[in-house]
Amino acid sequence: MLGAQPRTRRPLASQDVRPVVTKTAVNGHNPSPADIHVLLAPVKPGLRRVEEKMKAVDSALFAPLATAFVDLIGRGGKRLRPALALMTAELTGPLAGTPAYTRALSLAASVEMLHTATLVHDDVIDDALLRRGAPTLNADWSKGSTVIAGNYMFGRAAQFSAETGNMRVIRLFSDTLDIIVNGELHQLLARDAFHQEKERYYQRIYAKTASLFCAATEGAAVLAEMREHDIRSLRDFGYNFGMAFQIVDDILDFTGNEQTLGKPAGGDLRQGTLTLPFFYYLNEHPEPARLIAEMEEKIDLRDQGDDGYWDDTVRDVVAAVRAGRAIQDAQEEARYFLDLARRSLGEMPPSVYKTSMLGLCDFVVQRTY
Amino acid sequence: MLGAQPRTRRPLASQDVRPVVTKTAVNGHNPSPADIHVLLAPVKPGLRRVEEKMKAVDSALFAPLATAFVDLIGRGGKRLRPALALMTAELTGPLAGTPAYTRALSLAASVEMLHTATLVHDDVIDDALLRRGAPTLNADWSKGSTVIAGNYMFGRAAQFSAETGNMRVIRLFSDTLDIIVNGELHQLLARDAFHQEKERYYQRIYAKTASLFCAATEGAAVLAEMREHDIRSLRDFGYNFGMAFQIVDDILDFTGNEQTLGKPAGGDLRQGTLTLPFFYYLNEHPEPARLIAEMEEKIDLRDQGDDGYWDDTVRDVVAAVRAGRAIQDAQEEARYFLDLARRSLGEMPPSVYKTSMLGLCDFVVQRTY
Repeated sequence: MLGAQPRTRRPLASQDVRPVVTKTAVNGHNPSPADIHVLLAPVKPGLRRVEEKMKAVDSALFAPLATAFVDLIGRGGKRLRPALALMTAELTGPLAGTPAYTRALSLAASVEMLHTATLVHDDVIDDALLRRGAPTLNADWSKGSTVIAGNYMFGRAAQFSAETGNMRVIRLFSDTLDIIVNGELHQLLARDAFHQEKERYYQRIYAKTASLFCAATEGAAVLAEMREHDIRSLRDFGYNFGMAFQIVDDILDFTGNEQTLGKPAGGDLRQGTLTLPFFYYLNEHPEPARLIAEMEEKIDLRDQGDDGYWDDTVRDVVAAVRAGRAIQDAQEEARYFLDLARRSLGEMPPSVYKTSMLGLCDFVVQRTY
Repeated sequence: MLGAQPRTRRPLASQDVRPVVTKTAVNGHNPSPADIHVLLAPVKPGLRRVEEKMKAVDSALFAPLATAFVDLIGRGGKRLRPALALMTAELTGPLAGTPAYTRALSLAASVEMLHTATLVHDDVIDDALLRRGAPTLNADWSKGSTVIAGNYMFGRAAQFSAETGNMRVIRLFSDTLDIIVNGELHQLLARDAFHQEKERYYQRIYAKTASLFCAATEGAAVLAEMREHDIRSLRDFGYNFGMAFQIVDDILDFTGNEQTLGKPAGGDLRQGTLTLPFFYYLNEHPEPARLIAEMEEKIDLRDQGDDGYWDDTVRDVVAAVRAGRAIQDAQEEARYFLDLARRSLGEMPPSVYKTSMLGLCDFVVQRTY
């Protein structure tokens, strides 16, 4: 349930945000893809094993779809969730080769498989909402097979979670699944609702993103048998890292372009989903109530079949958000969360893993993809 | 994985089937709905608690959809899976009021919630295949909300499973989820494939139905801390009961009518899914290869947009299956499985629960809905 989030967040006004100056932020260095490889290097062998676990489908049974699945799983992104799980597991001492490390690999695979499952189902959910199809496997039965493919991944994720053999981690996994799905429901219900408390946004991105980062780091801390105090700190790290990660994702949806995003900017807004830059833009807009009324009018026209006005509105709002302070305010807020994340690691002994986790905090706010 | 099924079943020829004469079968008594209530009476208080658990959605969070969910869950069928779990749990001695009973309630809720989740997703899967919609919640976002509703139920099922606190039961749950989803994939792939080994049919109904009955009875036996030998027997009961249950379901799809089924007869065949009565009909058909060739031709026409020939073919085949021995052969096979199920209970001490489980075996083969 959403109520399970670590704290009730009050909406942050920009004056609350304490800018965090890090080394990389100071020199304005924009990390190349190589940097993320360097950051992930300490857990590369582990990530390879996670990938192998995820791809181990029974090919005898699965022949006709095995390739599609393995391809889908192989196309995964940066693997930040399993990477953070594996890094966390080693924060208080080396684990590699121990049974606890094997369990951490299961947790990492579980978390990433769950993430992949939700992405797969998102295709069906968004498609149905938008009434426009982008067939994924086969135009004839894309929806059916996509639903089943996602379910298959849920099932595998549950199996990996059970493999940890740790009741607390298993409960964490099933609670997280519940939080994520609740969040999807709320996102669905919140669409096209422009009179929306900003607090809802934080609840949504906690459910959608931060909850799974929490599960990765808290779960790994549990498996590494850390003290309760440290488990709590690692949960906080996952929470704050995940919140920042999603805020940056939402910023990129405004600032990116078709080349970096693989889709036109403003996709969230086009779907009627409000994100942080828009909430900040409302603050600086002279007549926010009027803006919302206008948008509602255009959404009504869209629903009557006339997409043109809505597309124009989205384009105008995206341009206005980019032109003002909203993006900067949202970035500052992401930095605020990352500052909290860094502090959560304060008591951890120095290690390559800690260094990488701190480095990933820098990466998140500077990433452009 | 499908390989986890209890035994490799060889296809049963009708001469293998030893007709089982039970008291109710002898007097030809067709149980009324009242009989099933009598059979379920010993676990009625438990089933009420299972229902309450399933319906306990956080209404504060869920307001707009809570009613739809509770309605969906409330519309559930005969609750045979949780009933068998609760009966099994009490077979070797009274459990009610103990922590083990509380765990059995969680298992029962988990199994029924998983069953409901797969039914909910079936709507999307079938709809996508048939390209004809029957909106479930809202015509605008039925597919999206249906997928999420199913996922919500998967999440709740995983939570209930975790609530048992028993690692073996949790593994059983996630393995069963995996088997079910694998089965869905295979069913999808097997559609419109008329050159099909009968063995595939047994694999499919194990995955689709018997596996979850196994999980209910085996899981309950584990929670009741039975001896390994008895756990094995209870798993066998669930397997054989579930196989019979699905065979009877597949028979009813041929023999039922719009009033009893809520849909026209021959629905499986219309979707290109082959079931036991059809396989038996192939045996008695003078030219099975020619029949299959004809059906393939009509399916091709259907795929080119001409449904009429296929509808006629399905109607003709359904009539032919009903006219011959196929239905009777399939019924005998269901009785054979039920005989095995009854024998699995042979060593259990007498109790109202055992009597009900034996009675449910009679109910299954005689049910008309």
